[in-house]
Amino acid sequence: MFDLPEKVTIVEVGPRDGLQNESTPIATPVKLAYIQKLVDAGLTQIEATSFVHPKAVPQLADAAEVARNLPRAVDVIFSALVPNLHGLKRAIESGFRRVAVFTAASDSFTQKNIGMSIEESLSVFAEVVREAIANGMTVRGYVSTAFVCPYEGLVSKDRVRELTDRLLQMGVDEVAVSDTIGAAAPKEVTETIAHLLRTVPRESIALHFHDTYGTALANVLVGLQMGITTFDSSTGGMGGCPFAPGAAGNLATEDLVYMLHRMDIQTGVNPDKLIEAGAVISQALGRPLRSAQWRMRNVTCAVNNGEYKTNISGA
Amino acid sequence: MFDLPEKVTIVEVGPRDGLQNESTPIATPVKLAYIQKLVDAGLTQIEATSFVHPKAVPQLADAAEVARNLPRAVDVIFSALVPNLHGLKRAIESGFRRVAVFTAASDSFTQKNIGMSIEESLSVFAEVVREAIANGMTVRGYVSTAFVCPYEGLVSKDRVRELTDRLLQMGVDEVAVSDTIGAAAPKEVTETIAHLLRTVPRESIALHFHDTYGTALANVLVGLQMGITTFDSSTGGMGGCPFAPGAAGNLATEDLVYMLHRMDIQTGVNPDKLIEAGAVISQALGRPLRSAQWRMRNVTCAVNNGEYKTNISGA
Repeated sequence: MFDLPEKVTIVEVGPRDGLQNESTPIATPVKLAYIQKLVDAGLTQIEATSFVHPKAVPQLADAAEVARNLPRAVDVIFSALVPNLHGLKRAIESGFRRVAVFTAASDSFTQKNIGMSIEESLSVFAEVVREAIANGMTVRGYVSTAFVCPYEGLVSKDRVRELTDRLLQMGVDEVAVSDTIGAAAPKEVTETIAHLLRTVPRESIALHFHDTYGTALANVLVGLQMGITTFDSSTGGMGGCPFAPGAAGNLATEDLVYMLHRMDIQTGVNPDKLIEAGAVISQALGRPLRSAQWRMRNVTCAVNNGEYKTNISGA
Repeated sequence: MFDLPEKVTIVEVGPRDGLQNESTPIATPVKLAYIQKLVDAGLTQIEATSFVHPKAVPQLADAAEVARNLPRAVDVIFSALVPNLHGLKRAIESGFRRVAVFTAASDSFTQKNIGMSIEESLSVFAEVVREAIANGMTVRGYVSTAFVCPYEGLVSKDRVRELTDRLLQMGVDEVAVSDTIGAAAPKEVTETIAHLLRTVPRESIALHFHDTYGTALANVLVGLQMGITTFDSSTGGMGGCPFAPGAAGNLATEDLVYMLHRMDIQTGVNPDKLIEAGAVISQALGRPLRSAQWRMRNVTCAVNNGEYKTNISGA
């Protein structure tokens, strides 16, 4: 009945969007072991870290060290978030070939999140993108609060399209249209994507959902139905949003993979190895991760001796 | 883009499907207070209890007492699950006007669940339905494991349609096509509903999802897209399945309502009052319920003094 894509690309944002929301410091070797296991699991796009100011996100203060020690994997694209030219310079020095820039569709959110207006952020990013491309890099863009803003409520579809268009004109090759607080339902996702598709090429759109209200997979479904084939997710549903207290976190990669595989949509990702990747972080955090897959597999982590056990149960 | 219904009927199964999976005994007055609050919240179809043998489900051994003291609410239809003629007799004596019968699309599951083959269960239910209708009652049917069986894997769509047809021929007016272990994804839901709709009237189909793998709302969405307008859910996501260890439980009523309202689909249900209904049970259980709404509203229950607090946060 519905014509769905045969194959989907998952952009794993756990090492950046996931970890930046964790207050427990994770040692660099643990992050690297985690990223190695993400590669082993078959993920081909991994946002590995962020070059924001270490004071803003202490968890990712080791960005350069993570970068220097990333796994050698020719078929994997690692990227780093950069907030400005200084961050880009560090990303270039660290050897990244892909960076991500971020703005939001709501001025109040952008102001609180990065202390700039949307226009200011765009003028900063225009330079960042130009410089990145001049250095042979590719650039991804995020449009945060693309559906709902915690301060302004429903976000204008026109605004989202204008921002997406402008990011693409700057030279960004993919825009992650993001439900930052995880409040969107399939109706607004459908409407916004339909609006975007009037001017934006389908293959330039990625969807980035958080699972605050349990709607993330339903939102993915309408994305698939509209031909979107790139989705962001985070191992174990790590992540969250400082502006949505109690938020569950990002859509969990393993739950996304479960639904996609069950719909005969290929991801190239091995679900069991995803659990192993999450277990590395779970042990460091001393608690299980929060995805449905983690609950169902009843993954228990013996934090002290570094062992963990996966009991695969259910269907 | 998608033509969705304007209005949906929610069949609240918390007092039966939800509670029957809770091992902590809930006192009858607590159940009645909970049901009263479900009525206050605007639910119009409530499965109030079950007349299965008290040894099989001790939690619902007070079915007759619950029935005698149900709220007087002329616009609410209360129903009770009945396994056989003896159960029906008790339901009639207790004043129910609607009962539900249950079979499954998988023989292994039916055997383990109710100790009969599907054919045996159908011959029992043919009599139950005949007798119920002769007593002026209406009858709902469940087809469990309609998508995935924990023992047999994928379930035949032909089988589901055959069972649905036969239940309707017996005089059942609505069949709840049920993902008992909560493993289904939108593809199989779409395919099974499409197959059913070849012979079954749309308005005779209800969908009953569990949220084991996080796919319940995505499954609801395809149901809506195919014109289904009746969905089962359970307050706070209570419930589960003894054959799916670790299962999260039924789709939570408040999460269903969140998504539907956010899509401008009416339910007649007040979300805040749903939380109050769940809080009655939460206090009795001594733990918060597990829905996204409960987590986001940060509902804390002071078990001892009967107070609870709802902090509504997020978008």
